[in-house]
Order: sequence, then structure tokens, then C-alpha cells
Amino acid sequence: MTRTAEPFDAIEVIRAKRDRQRLTDGQIDWVVDAYTRGVVADEQMSALSMAILLNGMERAEIARWTHAMIASGERMDFSALRQAGAGHDAGPKPTADKHSTGGVGDKITLPLAPLVAVYGVAVPQLSGRGLGHTGGTLDKLEAIPGWRADLSNAAMMDQLSDIGAVICAAGSGLAPADKKLYALRDVTGTVEAIELIASSIMSKKIAEGTGTLVLDVKCGSGAFMKTEPMARELARTMVDLGQDAGVNTSALLTDMDTPLGLTAGNAIEVAESVEVLAGGGPADVVQLTVELARAMLAGAGVSGVDPAEALADGRAMDVWRRMISAQGGDPDAPMASARESHVVTAPESGVLTRLDAMAVGLAAWRLGAGRTRKDAPVQAAAGVRMHAKPGDAVQAGQPLLTLLTDTPEQFERALGALEGGYEVAAAGTAAAEGFSPKPLIFDRIG
Amino acid sequence: MTRTAEPFDAIEVIRAKRDRQRLTDGQIDWVVDAYTRGVVADEQMSALSMAILLNGMERAEIARWTHAMIASGERMDFSALRQAGAGHDAGPKPTADKHSTGGVGDKITLPLAPLVAVYGVAVPQLSGRGLGHTGGTLDKLEAIPGWRADLSNAAMMDQLSDIGAVICAAGSGLAPADKKLYALRDVTGTVEAIELIASSIMSKKIAEGTGTLVLDVKCGSGAFMKTEPMARELARTMVDLGQDAGVNTSALLTDMDTPLGLTAGNAIEVAESVEVLAGGGPADVVQLTVELARAMLAGAGVSGVDPAEALADGRAMDVWRRMISAQGGDPDAPMASARESHVVTAPESGVLTRLDAMAVGLAAWRLGAGRTRKDAPVQAAAGVRMHAKPGDAVQAGQPLLTLLTDTPEQFERALGALEGGYEVAAAGTAAAEGFSPKPLIFDRIG
Repeated sequence: MTRTAEPFDAIEVIRAKRDRQRLTDGQIDWVVDAYTRGVVADEQMSALSMAILLNGMERAEIARWTHAMIASGERMDFSALRQAGAGHDAGPKPTADKHSTGGVGDKITLPLAPLVAVYGVAVPQLSGRGLGHTGGTLDKLEAIPGWRADLSNAAMMDQLSDIGAVICAAGSGLAPADKKLYALRDVTGTVEAIELIASSIMSKKIAEGTGTLVLDVKCGSGAFMKTEPMARELARTMVDLGQDAGVNTSALLTDMDTPLGLTAGNAIEVAESVEVLAGGGPADVVQLTVELARAMLAGAGVSGVDPAEALADGRAMDVWRRMISAQGGDPDAPMASARESHVVTAPESGVLTRLDAMAVGLAAWRLGAGRTRKDAPVQAAAGVRMHAKPGDAVQAGQPLLTLLTDTPEQFERALGALEGGYEVAAAGTAAAEGFSPKPLIFDRIG
Repeated sequence: MTRTAEPFDAIEVIRAKRDRQRLTDGQIDWVVDAYTRGVVADEQMSALSMAILLNGMERAEIARWTHAMIASGERMDFSALRQAGAGHDAGPKPTADKHSTGGVGDKITLPLAPLVAVYGVAVPQLSGRGLGHTGGTLDKLEAIPGWRADLSNAAMMDQLSDIGAVICAAGSGLAPADKKLYALRDVTGTVEAIELIASSIMSKKIAEGTGTLVLDVKCGSGAFMKTEPMARELARTMVDLGQDAGVNTSALLTDMDTPLGLTAGNAIEVAESVEVLAGGGPADVVQLTVELARAMLAGAGVSGVDPAEALADGRAMDVWRRMISAQGGDPDAPMASARESHVVTAPESGVLTRLDAMAVGLAAWRLGAGRTRKDAPVQAAAGVRMHAKPGDAVQAGQPLLTLLTDTPEQFERALGALEGGYEVAAAGTAAAEGFSPKPLIFDRIG
């Protein structure tokens, strides 16, 4: 066996970052590649990840790190997509993608992808499954009978050409270094490094080849980033990375102290998304869907349109139905409903002043909507239905939450998660009268 | 298979140190034990080690960490050793041990152990082999024909009773957690954490059960600690750890910018040690041997003696000869001499103002005196003989260094290591006239 001489040494790279040096391009390219090849060991990469978490990386280092992760796998190319009905000479169809850093009740991708496609922008949403208290887009869509998440690249390109929107599983070919590194960070207390979160997300999005990317960076109890400064730093880092790589990238900073919409689960979130596509649905879901659509359309060069109209007039619903059907799903089939339910009522009359996203997310997870380990099944029908949101008046004894599950032995643990997770201020008190909910979208970057 | 419930979670412990929290006693006990059992994975321990290196540990945390490493294995007990010639009622024989943090030409253990034993103090020197540019005590002694490093615990105790001094390989039963952790730190850029260096050294020394411990903490180019503040911090940390554990511990801070003595290798260092035991030898080796012996004797409660006398009158040599013979060695047998030699001469006449310990150590290593990987053999006869030390007058063309090896193809690389490693100031210049060598011992702690 011939030993290939390696141009760098893992210990030397670890020491450099440990001692607060800037890693060179060569060191970064090598360490990411060598880790993917198994030459750099897990215990070496975890030490380096901890050093990066504690000592940071500069903008140029993060960009190079992201580039190296992209180079570890294949890149997709949407430049062959043409404008619908246009001849050979038409320009390529613009592409736009949205990425959320994850929250409770975040079903926005479902109405958003078909809505943006209405305006001739291709939306390739490569999505994932959920782990922990935030749900996964694919888990939600799999509540639709027959719907398949796995598409070949060719099938995905065809669907993007014909229908304009696709939500499917990301292939394993994109940024395999990221997949390996993410699994390592997950067990070594190094998930929280903003540099590594940003490069993990952006390596996949850049490799995916989208022209425009809008980031929904969530901040609050139910989000990964608990504080605004951290969410802002993550958003700024990702926008810089995208722009440096030639992707038209912007970000919204949005609230995740409260769940989005009135449902957290799988089938119930699909149903709520369909309400939005039918011109109804909760105001916050509609607002965020429309605002993200505006940002994606603006990035893709589509101006002078109001996406709210395509929700109201059924055009987005048409794309949705075609998109679901193309992946084997029956948009008219009834979805599973939970075998058991349990209602949590308002303890007194007044104003709901808090409904904690983490509490609701954990409850939905424990009811079976999420998984506790990779590859475990989820319950389509499990979840939490909310009957009021912060700012709403409630009457003592009225339903506040309905817990849904096929495994009622989980009610107790779900109720435990909700303990202290909501507050009703008594009518007439200053706390009730003076309450005003936080804005949903609190900043835009890029 | 029954899964044993673990009281802690590795990620939680890593996060605590990452976020600058003090680890609890329970967390420390568990993580060291669980790592030894393989429940905490290498990649988790390396992330924790990096967090410790960058965020530090408090004195009480280090003490607990050390305690946990000791608890991972067996402890030795020298309390059954009795004063020579005394009856059953005599008190236990005091024990004293020396540990050096490692340097070039550091053969001090060889004359020191028999010297201290002369005064009725048992000296159990559990030693190691060398890796890198510093030699190992066992490698040096193995240049003596027939000498064996491996002794059973019973044989070691017998030798300590009969002769009073033993230099042998440390059994694998002492602090196995340290052995595993050291190997991990070695490949993950986390060797340099003072907390982990201190607990690694002290866990073995405390488990060994010595009553008195004198540390020789080296500082300079050829030492692990390059700067005085770092050496001082390491010394202070180790002295605290020893005293907290009931071991009478003190430290000398000594220079390692220059090699000790006039030899760096294996057989040639043994020969130099025998010169010291015969009342001669280089002044620096004699000085450090005597000073360390004084500290060990004082710690063991032996007062009113001058160890220099036992070097001069042959009593230390007698113990040496018995000690070597007891382990199968022939103290009179000729040792290997090198097949090839190469002389480096003084470039001009004047005063030698610098002879760099790291340069000499690397040269000796490349000549074959040290190993490049664990378990590789070393050449008994390889090394570097020095003909002058800083402060000595030299004549242009006189021998400065003699390189010794059985593998002359290594001369070039050894000469490369020596490039820029020594300086001669021309006679009559201010640099030559004003030069005075640094003191060998520059502080005492504890």
C-alpha cells in the first residue's frame, strides 16, 4: 500500500486555531477534505470544532470552510431550467429558496414554495426531517397519503420545469463533509458554534445552486438562537457567506418565543397550510408566508406583484395540488386523525400573555409528532392545536390547547412540558390591558 | 443486555466547561470513569480537553480530576517498608521520589536514586521511555547489558527493602485513565493544557504512594514549558495537587535552554552518570543531583547530612551497582559504542554563548537516540557529546560537538537540527567578555 503524503498535519491545524491563529486556505481545504476521507479522525475534528467555537473564525475563514464543505460533494445546476412556454433563446428560469433555522409550528415552506412558483420562479426546497422539538418539513408532508419525499435529480428537475416548485429530501451527494461533521458536533457539545452552523447551512444551500436565498432566522425560546444578538450574528454571517458565493442572500429575523400559527404537528400543520393556500389561515402564518415570498421574488428579479393575491385567488393552491400530485400525494385524501385528544382549558378569564414555543414544541414532540432518535417513525396525527395566541381574550374554562396523539400514555409527559408554558393575565389587570404581542418580523438583513 | 443508567451525559459536561462553568465533583468523577469504561467516546473527551485547555479549571476541579484519575486504577502502598536492620516496631521507611518534566541530557534520576537511598530513604522511581527530543530514563538504563526495566510489584518492593532504590517501568495498573487520556491528547492538540499536564503527572505520582515528591520543572527551549510563567504555573499547580493529596511536595524551577551535562543519548548518559557517582562529572549535573537529593531528604525528614559526601566517598556508587545488578544489569560490562562519529568544530575563537537544548535534543533524536513512534527501538550508542558549555572559552577548529550513530545517513539531518543551535562570540568582543551563563536553578516552590 502506498501512503499518500499529506500536505498538513491535523495537530498543527488544531494548534493553530487553539492558539487563536487564522487558519490558512490550504489548512482549511485540507482538514475538511481529510476529515471526509477519514484521515483526520473524529477526535481531532471535535477538538478543532471546540477550538473554533471558543476562538472563532474570521469572515474569510468561514467562507473558505464553507467552500471546502461544498467541494466535498456534488453541486447542482439549475441553469438548464427555462421560462415556461419560452423558446430556446429565453433566459434561464430564476431560482429562489428559503431556509428557516427551525421553530415550532413552522410550516411556512408548504404554502410558500407553490406561492413563489406562481410567479415563474423555480423553488427547489431540499428539506429535512425533524429531530427534537422542531418538526421537519418532510415529516409534515408525509402525512399526505401517498406523498414521497425521495426524488431522483432528474425527477426533481422535471418537476421544477413543469410545476415550478418541489419540496423533497436533500440527496446525500451535497456537502457530505457537512453530514459527517454535523453528526460529530451533535455528540461533542459543539453544535452551538455560529461559524459552523452558518457554514453547515450555507454549504448545502450554495451547493444546491439556488440563485436567490431568503433566510428565516428565528429567535426565541423555541428557536436554536435564544437571543437577538446571536440570531443577528448568525443571520449576518450567513448573508455574508451567501453573497460572497454569488448567491443573492437576505434574511428576516423573526420571533420564535411563540409558535407559528395554531398548530404544531404533522397532519394538522398540512391542514393549516392548505387553509392559507385557500386564502384563509392564521394571520401570522399568512404574514410570514407573504413577506418571505416578497423577499424571494425581489431577489429573483420579479417586481410589481403582490403575492397575497395568489393566495386569495387560488393560483398558489393550484400549484400546491400539482406539486403534491407529482410526488404521488393525493391532495384531496383525508389525513390521519388522532385516536385520542386531551383539552387544556384557560385557568381564568383575561388575556393570554404568553404561549411558550419551546413548551408547545416539546409537548408535540412527546405526543409523537417528532422523533427521539434518527430514523424513528413519527405519528402523522399527533401534535398540539392552539385555540388562542398571545393577545387573545380567553374565558375561564374555554379550550386553550388540544393535545392529539395515538399513544395517550404520553399525555402526562406532554402536560408536564406545558407546565408554566402559558400565562393568562386576569381581565382588568394592568398586565392584561397593557399587553401587546411582540412583532413577528423584527428585522431584515441584506 | 441491560443498559446501566448513567448519572450524567457527556454533552452536558462538555457544555458546562465550554460555557466556563466549574465542573461538579460528580461530573468529574463520572466523566473520567465513563471515559475509562468507553462510555464517553474519544471525540467527546477531546472536545472536553480542548474546552479545559481554553477555559481552564479551578484548583479544586484539578484536584478532583486528579483524584478521579487515581481512582481509575490501583494504588501502591509502601507503608510495609521498614527501616533497614530495624525490628518490627520500627516506623515505616520514608519514601521519596523525583519527577522531571523532561529535558535534554537529563540523566539526573540515575545518580539521584542511589544517592538518596544511601541515607535510608526508599526511592521508587517509576519511569518511562522517551518520545520525541527528550530521552527516556528506561531507554538510557537499557544501554546497560542485561538490565531489565520490568519488575513485578513484589520484586520492586523487595528491591526497595534490600537496596533502597529502584528505577523501573511503571505498571499499567496506575491511573489507566491517564494513559488513555494522554494518548488522546497527544493526537488532538490538547497536550499543552497545564491542568491536564499537572493531573497526568500527579495522578501517577500520588497513586504510586510516595511520601515525598520533588518536582524538577524545566523551563526553556528544550523543555515542554518554554517560558518561566508557564513553568511556574505548572509547578505551583502540581505542588498544590500533591500537598492537597497528603504528599510532601516541592518543586525546583530549572533551566533547560542548555542541555544538562555534556552528553545527550543513552549509553553516553549512563557513562556520565557513573562519573558523577564516582565523584566527578559535569558541574551542572552534580549540582542538580545534590540539590534534588537535599530536597528529597529534607522532605523525608533526614537532616544534618550533605549528599555531596556520598558522591565523593563512593557510598552512592555502591547502591548504584547493587541496584543495577538486582535488575540483571552488569555495572562493569562495556556498553555499546557508536559505529560512526562526526565532529562539529568551533567556527572561531572566543566564548560559547549559546548551546540550544532543543537543537541538541533533536540532533540526538535524529541520530537514533530517541524514537519517532511508540515502541520503536532506540540506538544505545547514538547521541551527542558536547565538548564545551555556554561560558567556556573555545578555539577556532576545536571540537564543539561529536555526533554518534550507527546509521551515518542520519548525520545530515542531525546537522540540520544543529544549524543555528550554537553561538561563539569572538574573543575580545563585548558579547564574549560580558557573557555570564544563566543560573541552573532559578526558584524553589513549596
